[in-house]
Amino acid sequence: MKTPVPTDDHPDKAELRLCRLGIDTYKEAVIYLREDSHVCISEGFEAHARIRVCLCDRVIVATLNMVKSDILEPGYASLSEYAWELLSAREGDVVCLSHAHPVASLSHVRSKIYGNPLTMPQTVEIINDISAGRYSDIHISSFLTACAGGRLSLEETVHLTRAMVRAGDCLSWPVDMVVDKHCVGGLPGNRTTPIVVAIVAAFGLTIPKTSSRAITSPAGTADTMEILAPVELDMARMRKVVEQQNGCIVWGGSVSLSPADDVLIRVEKALDIDSDGQLVASILSKKISAGSTHALIDIPVGETAKVRSLAQARALENMLVNVARELGMEIRILISDGAQPVGNGVGPALEARDVVAVLRNESDAPADLRERALTLAGLILEFSPDVAAGAGRDMARDILDKGDAWRKFQNICAAQGGMRQIPVAPYTHQIVSSEQGRVTQIDNRKIARLAKLAGAPQDAVAGLDLHVKLGHEVKIGDPLYTLHTASPGELAYVRSYIDEGNHIIRIGE
Amino acid sequence: MKTPVPTDDHPDKAELRLCRLGIDTYKEAVIYLREDSHVCISEGFEAHARIRVCLCDRVIVATLNMVKSDILEPGYASLSEYAWELLSAREGDVVCLSHAHPVASLSHVRSKIYGNPLTMPQTVEIINDISAGRYSDIHISSFLTACAGGRLSLEETVHLTRAMVRAGDCLSWPVDMVVDKHCVGGLPGNRTTPIVVAIVAAFGLTIPKTSSRAITSPAGTADTMEILAPVELDMARMRKVVEQQNGCIVWGGSVSLSPADDVLIRVEKALDIDSDGQLVASILSKKISAGSTHALIDIPVGETAKVRSLAQARALENMLVNVARELGMEIRILISDGAQPVGNGVGPALEARDVVAVLRNESDAPADLRERALTLAGLILEFSPDVAAGAGRDMARDILDKGDAWRKFQNICAAQGGMRQIPVAPYTHQIVSSEQGRVTQIDNRKIARLAKLAGAPQDAVAGLDLHVKLGHEVKIGDPLYTLHTASPGELAYVRSYIDEGNHIIRIGE
Repeated sequence: MKTPVPTDDHPDKAELRLCRLGIDTYKEAVIYLREDSHVCISEGFEAHARIRVCLCDRVIVATLNMVKSDILEPGYASLSEYAWELLSAREGDVVCLSHAHPVASLSHVRSKIYGNPLTMPQTVEIINDISAGRYSDIHISSFLTACAGGRLSLEETVHLTRAMVRAGDCLSWPVDMVVDKHCVGGLPGNRTTPIVVAIVAAFGLTIPKTSSRAITSPAGTADTMEILAPVELDMARMRKVVEQQNGCIVWGGSVSLSPADDVLIRVEKALDIDSDGQLVASILSKKISAGSTHALIDIPVGETAKVRSLAQARALENMLVNVARELGMEIRILISDGAQPVGNGVGPALEARDVVAVLRNESDAPADLRERALTLAGLILEFSPDVAAGAGRDMARDILDKGDAWRKFQNICAAQGGMRQIPVAPYTHQIVSSEQGRVTQIDNRKIARLAKLAGAPQDAVAGLDLHVKLGHEVKIGDPLYTLHTASPGELAYVRSYIDEGNHIIRIGE
Repeated sequence: MKTPVPTDDHPDKAELRLCRLGIDTYKEAVIYLREDSHVCISEGFEAHARIRVCLCDRVIVATLNMVKSDILEPGYASLSEYAWELLSAREGDVVCLSHAHPVASLSHVRSKIYGNPLTMPQTVEIINDISAGRYSDIHISSFLTACAGGRLSLEETVHLTRAMVRAGDCLSWPVDMVVDKHCVGGLPGNRTTPIVVAIVAAFGLTIPKTSSRAITSPAGTADTMEILAPVELDMARMRKVVEQQNGCIVWGGSVSLSPADDVLIRVEKALDIDSDGQLVASILSKKISAGSTHALIDIPVGETAKVRSLAQARALENMLVNVARELGMEIRILISDGAQPVGNGVGPALEARDVVAVLRNESDAPADLRERALTLAGLILEFSPDVAAGAGRDMARDILDKGDAWRKFQNICAAQGGMRQIPVAPYTHQIVSSEQGRVTQIDNRKIARLAKLAGAPQDAVAGLDLHVKLGHEVKIGDPLYTLHTASPGELAYVRSYIDEGNHIIRIGE
């Protein structure tokens, strides 16, 4: 060695101060480092490297993005919003960086790629690493692909479900029977949950419902319910509501049930892969974590729904029933008609309006939403040993017609923090038919897109209100649907989109 | 509709001005938009959405990252460095944004996931979309996984290779036989190419060699060659060199040969999946695109090399030979010893020094590098109808010993722009043995890591110089290797890394 090393030339190079750039990479942990930072050069970090980031006793693994400009000052690093949350970081915190150790469970993914079945311990390792944010999106995509195409056996799906439950919190309730419902998505306006919960809770069964916000749809059940009452309740508050009222409808995001599921769903959506094993594990892990003992799963089937064929629905049913049995949970499957939206409104406030109309037995309440809710509630009531098979639907109708469901719903809203007035959109525009004929197709996917372009779910009042159903006869000039928006600019924007030939309703002979 | 829409409230919301944030996402196209930008709200863009970005007649698809801070001003968008390059964007350019159409070829990937073989037209569509940047990393990972684990048949690998060739440029040469060599990576210091090219070109065969820079190694052949002569030649210049000298050693990045390969390799490395089909298509597509008719493929096998077992090497050989035959290319495989590094130096300048020492027949030139280069050159000479099987090696040795190879190499350097002096590191430090015994293991992967920590390949002079080989007897205090760095800080850093117990050489009984 030619020269002595001056100690002040050799600081601990692996430490940098945090500065928040506010970049939302949607649940991928990313770290931003200056290309010329000492830590990049001396650690040999390259763009896309996986880096271990420590802040106090919290550790995550993040993907490196190099910054070649002055948005970061020398000595500073930044994190994507997701990484920022995972680390509970604050502006100016000092993080310690090092090369991430290779994630050991990736060797199990590789083994699966080579056709070997996943064992329970392997599955637990994989899911724990995914929940802890140790997999990059590239790794998650590989795991999902390796499990897709029917490559997950019944046994592996049971492992996966169990592992997903274990990786998060679990709720427990002081009763023997806790009922739940789930719909395998894809139908705009299909907002039966608040009605079903009201009926079932009024009957006396325990139904502590946690719902999600919209991920890619114009409204999630939590978004719609939030129009009518607060939904962000903590565990203690939620327990109190259920204790008093037998049921609740709250946002599931406040409790960490099956956290791996949220990470997997995000990448699944980007891939648009249908993996029955993953779907089954996703549904059942959430239900088991929520403490449910009995659940009704609604699978709408339709050309533009999530499940497109009866064969696909039957395969899913078969897997759901078998896996649930292994896990000691009782489930019942309803394969329903998914050919068109349910109710009239699409968007949080418009859907809330429909829900209330059905609960209040209003004469103009959408009949299809009412019938669907009664079918679902009836099947759930039949989980009760006190209700004979086939008798549930009549009992549900009775509860709804007598006003018991509406009273129960008002009480639940009050217990959750107080019932709210439904807001109305300041700007509306009616789209009329330019043809004469019969309504032959209503495209669920395009309706969702249109409602989102109108501003839903961010603008709670935005969305669209359908005036026709499949089979209706229309004349030229008859109203098809009405657009609702919060601003004139958005209304003009959606109209121009429709004028470009984007039609959601097909009129035929 | 309640109010008329004032036209000034409805600008063309899908246009934004570009501002360069300089974020390097490593070949993933990302667009940064303000969360509150009109275009996000009105288009209904969500983080992670795929967005079509148009600039004049250039179009790419990018993944959305939302920005919740003021690093972007209202009315501005930014792109990752890769997207910036793809669009040839300039500061202040106006881009037009819209939802990306679903990429149609993803349905072929899904079909493959379900176990259906990929047809030629499907493969062409997939590879063209990948080359054009229409697949996100998530999609590429899914495609690679679906093809891994032995799921690509010989026929599908032929399709893939053809599709990868077609997606890029192809070179052609005015001779019947164009020879080439390739090494299936993983051995530090294995810098035979300049020596082999010099011998083969001196013999009279045409060998227009394009090489890569380091991706994850401490030096690529292009990095080492650049120490001795310019390597960034355009096509015209490269042709001229080959016309005059029969051979060249230039950086392949100047020509767009099999561009999909670069994208796939990046994600493959992150996944660490060994997919024989992909590897074969990657190697052969580059060779065919370069206009080669005959190629020698070197597969070093060793515990810490890329290929770890003879069985794996044989399987790879089998697939390479069969696919090459289908594509009308003649190849020969050399399965070689990959147990330890080749030569003494690791890092651009140190490897260049070894190359020159062999070419000049210096007495202290590394014998293993010389022998390896002679074996490879000999096998390539045997492609010539004028050279009998088994006679190549002696002819190669003759060319090297007589100084013809050295003269040819100097001429090639001159033709490429002038031969350069090899720089020397200002800071060095010798690591000595703390034990007595025999060298039983030299870890290729750890050596690469150490050389990179020392600063290679960014610092051309950085790296390490090995003083022992497997089987050597050493005493306490005997030199094992010498570290070379460009700064004292880096030297101290690598030394502290070694002091933490990171040993690359194992001494046994």
